[in-house]
Amino acid sequence: MARGRLARPGGRLAVGIDLGGTTLSGLLVREDGGILARRRRATPKAEGAEAVLAAARDMAAELLAKARAMKDTAAGAPALASREIAGLGFGIPGPIDAERGVCLFSPNLGWRNLDVASYFRQAFDLPVRVDNDVRAATLGEAWLGAGRPYRTFICLTVGTGIGSGVMLDGRLWRGSGSCAGEIGHIPIDMRPDAPLCGCGRLGCLEAVASGTAIAREAGMSSARDVADAARRGDARAILVLGWAAVFLGRGISTAITLYNPEAVIVGGGVAGAWDLIGPIVRRTVEERTFPPNLAGLRGIFPAALGQDAGAVGAASLVLAPLEDGP
Amino acid sequence: MARGRLARPGGRLAVGIDLGGTTLSGLLVREDGGILARRRRATPKAEGAEAVLAAARDMAAELLAKARAMKDTAAGAPALASREIAGLGFGIPGPIDAERGVCLFSPNLGWRNLDVASYFRQAFDLPVRVDNDVRAATLGEAWLGAGRPYRTFICLTVGTGIGSGVMLDGRLWRGSGSCAGEIGHIPIDMRPDAPLCGCGRLGCLEAVASGTAIAREAGMSSARDVADAARRGDARAILVLGWAAVFLGRGISTAITLYNPEAVIVGGGVAGAWDLIGPIVRRTVEERTFPPNLAGLRGIFPAALGQDAGAVGAASLVLAPLEDGP
Repeated sequence: MARGRLARPGGRLAVGIDLGGTTLSGLLVREDGGILARRRRATPKAEGAEAVLAAARDMAAELLAKARAMKDTAAGAPALASREIAGLGFGIPGPIDAERGVCLFSPNLGWRNLDVASYFRQAFDLPVRVDNDVRAATLGEAWLGAGRPYRTFICLTVGTGIGSGVMLDGRLWRGSGSCAGEIGHIPIDMRPDAPLCGCGRLGCLEAVASGTAIAREAGMSSARDVADAARRGDARAILVLGWAAVFLGRGISTAITLYNPEAVIVGGGVAGAWDLIGPIVRRTVEERTFPPNLAGLRGIFPAALGQDAGAVGAASLVLAPLEDGP
Repeated sequence: MARGRLARPGGRLAVGIDLGGTTLSGLLVREDGGILARRRRATPKAEGAEAVLAAARDMAAELLAKARAMKDTAAGAPALASREIAGLGFGIPGPIDAERGVCLFSPNLGWRNLDVASYFRQAFDLPVRVDNDVRAATLGEAWLGAGRPYRTFICLTVGTGIGSGVMLDGRLWRGSGSCAGEIGHIPIDMRPDAPLCGCGRLGCLEAVASGTAIAREAGMSSARDVADAARRGDARAILVLGWAAVFLGRGISTAITLYNPEAVIVGGGVAGAWDLIGPIVRRTVEERTFPPNLAGLRGIFPAALGQDAGAVGAASLVLAPLEDGP
């Protein structure tokens, strides 16, 4: 398991871009995991798909120029040949056909059946890989973050929505239709008055434990406000976060019982309230999980790469430091 | 995908034995999937582990004698060399370390840390493979049963307990600690008065939808009695089966949302009441499953091999007609 330890200074470079609904986050990454440059800007979502793609293209062009400048510096040196640009990787919210690089549907960006890979291949004439943002973050954590010690782990992202990426024995499991790990949509709240989820079903985990659900239940404008209120002793905020944590624990317990991972990693905006929800999530998992699967779990850990996870993982799609899965 | 289509008459032979808590079921299987001999007897569980192992050894010896008799018939013929005995495979209820062939714990047989593979290797001096009974049944259905058309499917066994085997892209996913697919123990009944499961947790799927749970809730001696009563119009039996089917549907919906399979296959004793529970299971899955994952599902099908599934799958462990997973 040489994961993340391919220390080869002067190795290949890749651009990774996390195309979020709010922020475009880009990195220039070396194949030994070194981050050589970083770009961030607001996603011009209101201006339409063309504007968002153009903004990502400009960001990629800047990062590639940076990479070429580094190459030129090394001109004539023996390391030159190995400083090649491996390509560009993109993480996009919503169901993605990772094989073709097509965004099937992204409610967050307002895209449908958009051939993202072809757009960037035409722009740069370089290899391009595209995957779902949560899977990209999972690959990032696997390569350089909290997932490094584990062959098999689940990486949850709890923010506006809830998703997960699944690493099974060192390979990403994408599912038969690119929809594996949709933990935000397992039916978890079985009460007859369970809230309706954005997907149209009743009582999905996302409808009761996402940042959006937490803010709605507390009557506040964001999950961060709810966490701040809870830290000040606001009883309703404490109760809302507590219930979200219990549901999250039940969802994680379910995933542990089905996948049998070594670890669970939790990232995303709501992970910023981990001091409040973490102990309740852990206790719920301990109380609800099948004992042999609980015994095999090393722990539930916060993600390590923060806002870089998606772009690091996107770059890893072309650098391929990990074995690749189907 | 040549699965199950390795038509090579005169191919290698294997013995597969399903070591159930009630019945020992043995088959002599040819690598093209032909079943050449079949043995069944009650498991002498009350006489202890030694007696059960000896009964399985005697059954295996009979089937091997049959295989050798077939070889002798072909003596001198060109097909002889390929008629070799590939080995013996065993399916055992409970958590199994499939790599070492050790039964970690089998509440059903009363075994703990029993080195099953070594016992049979010493008895026969042939290759031996051991796996969990539910995973063996899954391999059986994958090779010769209802799973043949699919690369990715879940095979549930709903009987005394509830378990599942998981085929992901043509390989069995056993989990990081040999405990994947424990769908009987996902927390599904969240009511405060949810029944206690045999595993010590509250509200597991097995505690509300297994044959044992169905009989207990209806106050009858077996799930078959409950099904018979329901077919005669007994209101309580109908209600109990209806709720079990709803919980089963929610559990299946959860597994579909996490694994993204092409199909779900349901076997085991309770599948005998599929005419009663099947429509409710299907409707619950349709109502509760994340739409993209539901769209990717070809269907929920009854298992095809019945009581042979486990022994066929056990034989497949040594014949290896499928790719093998970790």
